[in-house]
Amino acid sequence: MKRSILAALLLPLLIGCSFEERQSGGIEDTAVTPEMGPRKEIIQPEGVARLPVFSSAVRSGDLIFLSGAIGAQPGVNPPQLVEGGVIPETHQTMENIITVLDAAGATLLDLIKCTVFLADISDYAAVNEAYVQYFPSDPPARSAVAGSGLALGARVEIECIAAVPEV
Amino acid sequence: MKRSILAALLLPLLIGCSFEERQSGGIEDTAVTPEMGPRKEIIQPEGVARLPVFSSAVRSGDLIFLSGAIGAQPGVNPPQLVEGGVIPETHQTMENIITVLDAAGATLLDLIKCTVFLADISDYAAVNEAYVQYFPSDPPARSAVAGSGLALGARVEIECIAAVPEV
Amino acid sequence: MKRSILAALLLPLLIGCSFEERQSGGIEDTAVTPEMGPRKEIIQPEGVARLPVFSSAVRSGDLIFLSGAIGAQPGVNPPQLVEGGVIPETHQTMENIITVLDAAGATLLDLIKCTVFLADISDYAAVNEAYVQYFPSDPPARSAVAGSGLALGARVEIECIAAVPEV
Repeated sequence: MKRSILAALLLPLLIGCSFEERQSGGIEDTAVTPEMGPRKEIIQPEGVARLPVFSSAVRSGDLIFLSGAIGAQPGVNPPQLVEGGVIPETHQTMENIITVLDAAGATLLDLIKCTVFLADISDYAAVNEAYVQYFPSDPPARSAVAGSGLALGARVEIECIAAVPEV
Repeated sequence: MKRSILAALLLPLLIGCSFEERQSGGIEDTAVTPEMGPRKEIIQPEGVARLPVFSSAVRSGDLIFLSGAIGAQPGVNPPQLVEGGVIPETHQTMENIITVLDAAGATLLDLIKCTVFLADISDYAAVNEAYVQYFPSDPPARSAVAGSGLALGARVEIECIAAVPEV
Repeated sequence: MKRSILAALLLPLLIGCSFEERQSGGIEDTAVTPEMGPRKEIIQPEGVARLPVFSSAVRSGDLIFLSGAIGAQPGVNPPQLVEGGVIPETHQTMENIITVLDAAGATLLDLIKCTVFLADISDYAAVNEAYVQYFPSDPPARSAVAGSGLALGARVEIECIAAVPEV
């Protein structure tokens, strides 16, 4: 119920976005955008809609800052959460993070810090149980906090910072 | 109503702060503060009250970490939000961010990651609509989450990380 | 009441963790973990239980990202908050942050950015009053936001980013 209200509130905005359905992926050549600071590279995963409001990730120096990810089904516009509640959403969120990392040439092993935003702190244990499966050892530093609402009525949103892997 | 209660709670603290009404702006010379780590430079915009609780921004290496900004009217002490609700607050918040970036020699183009904290997720679309106007292309990575309350009863608080522009 | 419910929800998970009671402290030698990105060093304070879900802190380049800290009593497993409410919790949180910084060879002076998550915005002034005592000058940049709940029923959680001190 709450979710459907939120979706109704948010979808008009999201639908209204003129998605540039870019087919190119990876790190963009910043040289073609002279007005942009040279220490800022936009990471745009292939097949992911480019939104006017935020970039999927931005690399600066040796760090990659990922936008908060939610459990939206890949390739579906307007965005739609996977069904089944917080556990499937957590898994999908992690998959979406992997997609963005991949476009930057990185993996989950390169994550150094994550923040988990929950819609309800009572999901904390369930999210942890799903989340920990992605980090068999040396997990990133992390904070977790519950708020009162997330975009699209998501139950979990995870934002991450990754280190650029050495080549 | 809620806002006035929060303001009443917070203002005594804020008024109680011994504001150092510094007139100097820009990046401070860290050489005069030997006990401070050399990789930490305080950014202090001209005309902005220096608070004991947080610095406006701190530069470390090639990154500038800005404190969360709210839609407080510039030059008004004790701090007071602009009137008119979440849209004017978002615009004023962005203006306050520009002021801090300017003191660091940076602009909105240098922002690489922002976090938008909302008092109410139902403001998500309105905040996005105002926010996106500041980023005609290549917006920063971003997370957005609604909580249960912000300082001064603000409806929106935005924190940002910027890359130091190359010279 | 609310706290005890949350603790009841969370403790089974936390108890269930196979705590590796590592006695080693400090920055780990990443050379022994080849599958881990070389730009990622786990900070593990001596005497602090190593959790599968997050590392106490991760260093990457010149930055140290600390996990969100709460006012948990040191050396107590399963984790238990200090008694007495938000002010003792804030002080214990800061002490726990000092412990992690120390394992990375850093101090509070090296903090460049903190985020304060509150369970209730009405604690804002009290937390500020305790927090500011740790920063006699040049405080880090900071954001503060209240959510609807924190792990273990904590009233405050603080996450920090520090600059690696120059040697």
